[in-house]
Amino acid sequence: MTTRNQGYFTEENSAEVVTGQIGPDTDPRLAEVMAAIVKHMHAAVKEIEPTQEEWLTAIKFLTETGHKSDDWRQEYILLSDILGVSMLVDAINNRKPSGASESTVLGPFHIPDAPELPMGANICLDGKGAPMLIKGRILNTKGEPISGAKIDVWQTNDDGFYDVQQKGIQPDFNLRGVFRTGSDGTYTFWGAKPRFYPIPDDGPVGKLLGNMGRHPFRPAHLHYIVSADGYEELVTHIFDPDDEYIGSDAVFGVKESLLAKFELIEDAEQIKAANQTGPYYEVVHDFVLAPES
Amino acid sequence: MTTRNQGYFTEENSAEVVTGQIGPDTDPRLAEVMAAIVKHMHAAVKEIEPTQEEWLTAIKFLTETGHKSDDWRQEYILLSDILGVSMLVDAINNRKPSGASESTVLGPFHIPDAPELPMGANICLDGKGAPMLIKGRILNTKGEPISGAKIDVWQTNDDGFYDVQQKGIQPDFNLRGVFRTGSDGTYTFWGAKPRFYPIPDDGPVGKLLGNMGRHPFRPAHLHYIVSADGYEELVTHIFDPDDEYIGSDAVFGVKESLLAKFELIEDAEQIKAANQTGPYYEVVHDFVLAPES
Repeated sequence: MTTRNQGYFTEENSAEVVTGQIGPDTDPRLAEVMAAIVKHMHAAVKEIEPTQEEWLTAIKFLTETGHKSDDWRQEYILLSDILGVSMLVDAINNRKPSGASESTVLGPFHIPDAPELPMGANICLDGKGAPMLIKGRILNTKGEPISGAKIDVWQTNDDGFYDVQQKGIQPDFNLRGVFRTGSDGTYTFWGAKPRFYPIPDDGPVGKLLGNMGRHPFRPAHLHYIVSADGYEELVTHIFDPDDEYIGSDAVFGVKESLLAKFELIEDAEQIKAANQTGPYYEVVHDFVLAPES
Repeated sequence: MTTRNQGYFTEENSAEVVTGQIGPDTDPRLAEVMAAIVKHMHAAVKEIEPTQEEWLTAIKFLTETGHKSDDWRQEYILLSDILGVSMLVDAINNRKPSGASESTVLGPFHIPDAPELPMGANICLDGKGAPMLIKGRILNTKGEPISGAKIDVWQTNDDGFYDVQQKGIQPDFNLRGVFRTGSDGTYTFWGAKPRFYPIPDDGPVGKLLGNMGRHPFRPAHLHYIVSADGYEELVTHIFDPDDEYIGSDAVFGVKESLLAKFELIEDAEQIKAANQTGPYYEVVHDFVLAPES
């Protein structure tokens, strides 16, 4: 082991000395990742110049973040989310060709077995909230409709809760559904206007958010997974641009291209044509899938 | 909150968007620290380009490192140690003027109430291991002896264990002692030749060490805290330069200036003069204290 001695530790050469101890038989990817982590971590420490007390505060924060995590609560994912790391990893893994729809984070509330429904169905099973008509087209990057695309959607109710957060209060599979496009590539379904909601903020990450003068809210959105044979799966949201938190999503999920006008329809003719008894919201948004690479 | 919108998230501006959400009333030091952490963390992610699976591996590792930590075991300090962060923080907080002795990490085995002993006393209470005579001077940066300096020493036995790790096996306060210099600034005491030992490596940090082709050992050393009125406290070790792990300390505690020859004395005259019955080790090392700033 002593043959790997790259010189003794100094403040100047600290990262090189640590990286120099990585063994020659180390998995090359692990060696590359650890060298990058050490380099950037030492650069951060040199810039911050923490006191011993500040260093211990960081150790305690990281420990508490671990202790808060269990099978039901993942405080380290929350930490990654509120520091924009989850979105950055998502962006790096989902670079799309020009014209294709952008991705955003999956989030923890998707369930795999939502029911497949006919186009035009209403996924709001309890009739709560403001009715909302959501429609648009699934297209390829040439602007052609994609037939047989699968659209998996889920959203909060107008109180900002997903069905899985309110078992026994909301019906099972409330505000979830799977749809398939026909040859014209269009989709349409009814839901309810979603509401902003907080990420869990009763742990160390929520306390850090508060200490940074940040709120825990995500602006109102609908989740989509759109997939079709021969195309890359698209995991994304569309957002209400009029939400009060649209410019400060706690997890940085908003992208300019994912804003979709939630338009209030008050015209009597339109209300009647839509078989509604009063005003409703309408969102029109097309999704463009990238070809499979 | 929307007034703080710095533009929506993109791969390019990710760190700026996150930092832009830090509120104006945030504690200035916290704001500075978090901005630096976000900048360097995003730079690391952009360099590494982790897959979603690698990101999840990191989340799980951080969570397990928290779960392994309790009142007795601090796995996050171990992680900081093996990545050289603890030593870097120590170095930043203990920059010494030219000529003064260098610091190294305190470690977890100091106890505050070791007995004060007369110069020349033997701190090896069970007679185990190779006898070792440790001596030298406590000086100021002008080379003058410091009178009344307090020298707090502790070390492992020849099996590589501290007394507190072997309650009931080693006598209490074995291989610990506090000494005070007289007007000549010299110190001298007997101990036992210490041995290398492993940091706890049965947790996620030990597994990471192994995956990097690294061993968990610290080369043999003696711990010192040297203090005197009007001088900066010095927390340091001296190391056996002939230890097999001297070039690869698992926690990067070794500095060139902290190497101290552990010389084997086999000369019959010297053995007799030292009241020994056989060969013993001798270490001569001076410490130079920096003036209080």
